[in-house]
Amino acid sequence: MSRAFDELKPYLDRAMALNTALVLFEWDNETLAPEQAGSLTGNVIGILSGEYFQAVNNDQVIRLAEACSRENDLTKAEAAQVRELLKEIEKLSHIPREEYQEYARLTAESARVWAAAKNADDFSRFAPVLKEIINWQKKFAGYRAKPGQKKYDVMLEDYEPGFSVERLDEFFDLIRKEIVPLFKSVMESGVEIRDDFLSGSFPDSVQEKIGRFVAEYVGFDFSKGVMAVSAHPFTTNLHNKDVRITTHYTDRLDSSLFSIIHEAGHGLYEFGIRDDLTQTMAGQGASMGMHESQSRFFENIVGRSLSFWKPVYGKLQEAFPENLGQVRLEDFVKAVNKASAGFIRTEADELSYSLHVLVRYELEKELIEGDLSVDALPEAWADKYEQYLGIRPRNVREGVLQDIHWSQGSFGYFPSYALGSAFGAQLYYHMKEEMDFEGLLEAGKISVIREYLREHVHQYGKLKDSRSILKCTTGEDFNPEYYVRYLKEKYQKLYGLSQN
Amino acid sequence: MSRAFDELKPYLDRAMALNTALVLFEWDNETLAPEQAGSLTGNVIGILSGEYFQAVNNDQVIRLAEACSRENDLTKAEAAQVRELLKEIEKLSHIPREEYQEYARLTAESARVWAAAKNADDFSRFAPVLKEIINWQKKFAGYRAKPGQKKYDVMLEDYEPGFSVERLDEFFDLIRKEIVPLFKSVMESGVEIRDDFLSGSFPDSVQEKIGRFVAEYVGFDFSKGVMAVSAHPFTTNLHNKDVRITTHYTDRLDSSLFSIIHEAGHGLYEFGIRDDLTQTMAGQGASMGMHESQSRFFENIVGRSLSFWKPVYGKLQEAFPENLGQVRLEDFVKAVNKASAGFIRTEADELSYSLHVLVRYELEKELIEGDLSVDALPEAWADKYEQYLGIRPRNVREGVLQDIHWSQGSFGYFPSYALGSAFGAQLYYHMKEEMDFEGLLEAGKISVIREYLREHVHQYGKLKDSRSILKCTTGEDFNPEYYVRYLKEKYQKLYGLSQN
Repeated sequence: MSRAFDELKPYLDRAMALNTALVLFEWDNETLAPEQAGSLTGNVIGILSGEYFQAVNNDQVIRLAEACSRENDLTKAEAAQVRELLKEIEKLSHIPREEYQEYARLTAESARVWAAAKNADDFSRFAPVLKEIINWQKKFAGYRAKPGQKKYDVMLEDYEPGFSVERLDEFFDLIRKEIVPLFKSVMESGVEIRDDFLSGSFPDSVQEKIGRFVAEYVGFDFSKGVMAVSAHPFTTNLHNKDVRITTHYTDRLDSSLFSIIHEAGHGLYEFGIRDDLTQTMAGQGASMGMHESQSRFFENIVGRSLSFWKPVYGKLQEAFPENLGQVRLEDFVKAVNKASAGFIRTEADELSYSLHVLVRYELEKELIEGDLSVDALPEAWADKYEQYLGIRPRNVREGVLQDIHWSQGSFGYFPSYALGSAFGAQLYYHMKEEMDFEGLLEAGKISVIREYLREHVHQYGKLKDSRSILKCTTGEDFNPEYYVRYLKEKYQKLYGLSQN
Repeated sequence: MSRAFDELKPYLDRAMALNTALVLFEWDNETLAPEQAGSLTGNVIGILSGEYFQAVNNDQVIRLAEACSRENDLTKAEAAQVRELLKEIEKLSHIPREEYQEYARLTAESARVWAAAKNADDFSRFAPVLKEIINWQKKFAGYRAKPGQKKYDVMLEDYEPGFSVERLDEFFDLIRKEIVPLFKSVMESGVEIRDDFLSGSFPDSVQEKIGRFVAEYVGFDFSKGVMAVSAHPFTTNLHNKDVRITTHYTDRLDSSLFSIIHEAGHGLYEFGIRDDLTQTMAGQGASMGMHESQSRFFENIVGRSLSFWKPVYGKLQEAFPENLGQVRLEDFVKAVNKASAGFIRTEADELSYSLHVLVRYELEKELIEGDLSVDALPEAWADKYEQYLGIRPRNVREGVLQDIHWSQGSFGYFPSYALGSAFGAQLYYHMKEEMDFEGLLEAGKISVIREYLREHVHQYGKLKDSRSILKCTTGEDFNPEYYVRYLKEKYQKLYGLSQN
């Protein structure tokens, strides 16, 4: 007698193959595809998206998935796949195939439109596309919303199961209450941290070389991964033996350096997923927030610490002797943690970072649930930067056009960045009890830290959600107070503020 | 009343999309994918190949294709698509889906096995895979062969419709009769052409820069194309707005330089295909031979001529002042045409090139139709090189493992290379009557030559086969005597031999 799951398996494999192809097209689009390819390749992506839609969302698959959910001999991995499949079906079954396909065709090109608009510093070139994307997103969320459920909650649930507007309002209220004043005190402290040596002329080829070294140092395995260049750094993967990160090279050394450590952190998550889960619907990170917790953990908690750089700062000095030869390790580490009121989220220090996300959370809520219009968005954006960071962008390139996310239809994604930082802080304080965290870093034994995370977080893929990973690992449900504590301890010390 | 073709169109689009995905995976495999990705990505490729198989070869598509072939209101482009579809159905319908899928999975990895074996100079690492591939190829050809038809004829027909073993035997007899002795006379002429300045240390980045310049100079449009690095240079495309070439950089300047012109020639063909044909089954080159005619035309007839280099040799000297600063244009052109008995086909001069293909044609015929075993192949290979080129490879890296083709299951492909040269020579003698060929090159007006070929060859895609392209353009069916004439004129002059 054959099990329903065995019957279902070929359908899952088919969906996986189509999805992997879509991932590859997206990677190619962002890193290599020629300028004029967009529209014709968009046809291909539209059709393959429709195929994926059809592969997951058809009567036979739905029947088998429901039969599976009633079976009681499923392994944990199989049960997780069925659960994810049912989620995907729920997501897709409310959306007519033609609409889904049209939307996919739109977003296959919209990132390019965004990039051109950003390049030209011209919001009006992107606005029509953004309006279309938001209309589709609201339409789709409307199809899917349970009675009384907010559309924005539907979107949030896709990225971070278990975190609704209600819960996020609490989280961001805490940020507003604790971090906004902390940031203000830091800005008004009168303490000047030197970081001029981070700017200058750094040849791309040398940046790439040291970037590869650092990626490998934190554990990125180039026999199972590649690194390329794109406008906005990102990580993607075809499976756990093909993980891809990108970076970009600028005249700020820390920009590519820490973006590489960040993306490598995402990459470690993907490498760490168990072989029996990769290429299945349970073979990705638990959630966007948990993914960001790993990238930001490696970028900030590990990568911006004195202990991390002790064994390898010499390498960096060797690569850039003119810029860093005379800069002491302590001064370098202070510089890469310097807080400042800047416009660009991805270049932000850890402290102001949460405020950049706060801005986006509030704007998304107003765009989806309130009455903020796309045309009014650049002004609303500038107003919030003025309110929380005390600065007002004078152009859209540094303002509302800086992030790729909305051009890809990713609404509800941004909160994950702040949640990820908060997850990471919670994991950090627990790990400090389990091991000599700083001592390991100083001894170059970063692998112990990485293996701990692989063991407790990475390997499970979607077998657990973010809250249960936190509970199993730290013994406690999500608790944002750790994040506030982490930022306070770090920045009060760095800026010599009184501890309160 | 809806036309059968309109009903068929979505099925054709679906097949196109799946095929484009497979092309992208292949490109990615050859240029970028990490070492350990092969097996898991092979799963994906296997599934997508099965999907393609199913997309083309199912009752509904077959019914519609047959209905279309009876319709009399098809446009030429539609009729060509239906014809190509019926060919594809004929090809696939005899092969069980599972076998096709298993074969696709094998060939997704086999190029990697070949590369590793070549790298290790160890034929025994590749032999088992090659045996499997040949068994599949023979099996598939056996399924498809009409009564009395040779298996090798089935394979040849896929690459060069209208050229059977019988016709190719005549062609290669002419090569054996005319070119083998010509090559021998050249080798025994006692004339020494200096080419030491082509060897040396040429930084990859400078080779890349001049390579891009030359590619653009012949008309490769980087807004619709990209260039990357791979073990074996090749060209592929997603459609006529996304054309991709690769090269490799060595310590021989002419190696990357002429491989880029060669691949750019393939690329020009793909760019030139009409917009109403791209992304359809008629939107590729007429045949492999016609494709090679264009790449070899640009590489050799154009690219190795004195007239071509007159306007641009200075650029090359500027790029490599130490190597070429003191080398006269005439000596450079002589050097890149120097005939020699070498082991590597892709590095061969035009004269010996045909002999490299002759070897492969005879071996393929014996592997498929005769009783040559894979294990005996390295020796048989070496024997033929001794017979026709007077040299015997001492290792398999320079011998039987040099080409990627067999690892990809491409049997029947090699003859296209020599046919392509012969097509090109026939086009050349005709074009010389139509225009001041050398004068245009000297004036840097290569675009006139390119546009002539776009007009007469490229734009048609598969609307015409190679013989009808030759007939329409030159007024004559395929005539290999032009090729012999071309080689004789060129090499008798270069080596000061008496004209006979």
